[in-house]
Amino acid sequence: MQKIGKQTVKFDTPPTILQTASIVGPKEADGPLASCFDQCLDDEFWGEKSWEKAESKIIKETVNMVIAKSGIPSEQIDYCFAGDLLNQCISSSFGLRELNIPFFGIFGACSTFVEALCMGSVFLEGGAGNYALCAASSHFCSAEKQFRFPLELGNQRPPSSQWTVTGSGAAIVAKNGMGPYITHITPGKIVDMGIKDANNMGAAMAPAALDTLLTHFKDTGRSPSYYDAILTGDLGYVGKEILIEMAGTKGYNIKSNYNDCGVLIFDKEKQDTHSGGSGCACCATVFSGHLFKMLQQKKYKKILLMATGALTNSTTAQQGESIPGIAHAVAIEL
Amino acid sequence: MQKIGKQTVKFDTPPTILQTASIVGPKEADGPLASCFDQCLDDEFWGEKSWEKAESKIIKETVNMVIAKSGIPSEQIDYCFAGDLLNQCISSSFGLRELNIPFFGIFGACSTFVEALCMGSVFLEGGAGNYALCAASSHFCSAEKQFRFPLELGNQRPPSSQWTVTGSGAAIVAKNGMGPYITHITPGKIVDMGIKDANNMGAAMAPAALDTLLTHFKDTGRSPSYYDAILTGDLGYVGKEILIEMAGTKGYNIKSNYNDCGVLIFDKEKQDTHSGGSGCACCATVFSGHLFKMLQQKKYKKILLMATGALTNSTTAQQGESIPGIAHAVAIEL
Repeated sequence: MQKIGKQTVKFDTPPTILQTASIVGPKEADGPLASCFDQCLDDEFWGEKSWEKAESKIIKETVNMVIAKSGIPSEQIDYCFAGDLLNQCISSSFGLRELNIPFFGIFGACSTFVEALCMGSVFLEGGAGNYALCAASSHFCSAEKQFRFPLELGNQRPPSSQWTVTGSGAAIVAKNGMGPYITHITPGKIVDMGIKDANNMGAAMAPAALDTLLTHFKDTGRSPSYYDAILTGDLGYVGKEILIEMAGTKGYNIKSNYNDCGVLIFDKEKQDTHSGGSGCACCATVFSGHLFKMLQQKKYKKILLMATGALTNSTTAQQGESIPGIAHAVAIEL
Repeated sequence: MQKIGKQTVKFDTPPTILQTASIVGPKEADGPLASCFDQCLDDEFWGEKSWEKAESKIIKETVNMVIAKSGIPSEQIDYCFAGDLLNQCISSSFGLRELNIPFFGIFGACSTFVEALCMGSVFLEGGAGNYALCAASSHFCSAEKQFRFPLELGNQRPPSSQWTVTGSGAAIVAKNGMGPYITHITPGKIVDMGIKDANNMGAAMAPAALDTLLTHFKDTGRSPSYYDAILTGDLGYVGKEILIEMAGTKGYNIKSNYNDCGVLIFDKEKQDTHSGGSGCACCATVFSGHLFKMLQQKKYKKILLMATGALTNSTTAQQGESIPGIAHAVAIEL
């Protein structure tokens, strides 16, 4: 691999995304991508006594599923890179505690899935192993409870608020394979433009997405039209419009081939999620369920997947802090 | 690099730890290692209005200090790997939001500093850049508030409890240099032996430390006597004794050259910290302040640094879960 430009790594022998799996909750099962997911749950508890335990079960079963689908024995998987939104990343730690695979916990808020893909591909192409498991989860109920208000309060949600996706997406990256290949990664910097509204994460994260997007284009010499699709993780409707407009002012027209996983996963008219989906699982399930199939079917040949994260919590909100954003990008090509 | 044995990576051209920095709180400044740290604070607030903001300031200033000491312009640093114990790793995200270096948030509980060293060294030896910044922080007051009881409660601490180190340690790893070199990494698996006592983290983490330690010896063919010193991160007095005994039953005598950073940082007789120090900053400050100097002065030529983490939180404790542990090891040699 080699570093090109300011902050992009180009792989000489690009790692392959071998297989993906996804499990989602009931609301996602009512959305337009329902048929893409491996499993849709009937309720948010899945037989567990708490939302946290349910989220752990979701990531555990998603990971078991991707291992089974890949056909790779789990003892041949060299590393697991995983994380989630819960305090101290407990969904991942508890869900994956019986996995018996060397474990790197990561936290990039909703950018975690792509952060995992970045790390997995650098480890494998560098020679540290043959297979890496990359996973992330989120859960609407555990996230609302932790970041905003208890669900029992029945709090009114403003139009800019987003709906945390219940689910998990997981991918197995292989050092050698037939593609789709991770050809480049552009890890992002923290960008904080002073947005303080915890119900407007899209606006808080859009400047970080812009920074990573422009850096990726400059580092690689590519333009937006190089990609069949450019996907952000969870900017939602509000953040998506901001990104399109800001990219336009910088001379990059992304209108025709750019979309956001949070926009794709729910039906705007019927599902009343306001600004769309969010959460680690938004990008993870839309990639694992939908985009990976589009690549396999050669409907997309080149995509830029850029997950966005809001590096905030309830304590910092209460202490009057603004919301730092981050965005990590991976170029995936056939 | 190449993977050797089950889960160890051996570097062909080992990265160098170029420089370290450490800042600690007032209790650490009263301990036996006080003279090793770059800066000792007079109080736990450092002029900030909350413990969380103080912790962010501590990691920020530690990182600024290590960059200044290294002489490497910050725009030449390719990646920052950092994390902490606070919910959603806010110390790192907020403390480092103006750093302007591509940022990978990581969470390994108290194993975070060594997790960062593992990642940094794989990225650099793999060819993804020339310099990586690795940092971690913790704060006694913010940790007690979040994991156990509010300090204002004046809760009695049982003898097995540990004292979270207030401080931050940071290191700059370089692709090329004159050493000390990171020659091997052995990332750990999650191990959960069913311990449920949040005031006995040492016992909860010791089985994970044993697993990584034995794996490291088997993978490398080394025995305990190969190292001048074997250091765990924060098993404390209770966990240290458990590890010595368990290693003994497996045929590895580590009594003569093994110690724990949580045992080293406080004075057992005078400082009343019960089972010793803990927290991300325990291993990070003891390495950055003390062990790195021992290597520079050639008093140690080969050490195995193995940070331990308890992947738990207050919600899982309240929901009756046990405490999963993890331990990541790096071999550092002249």
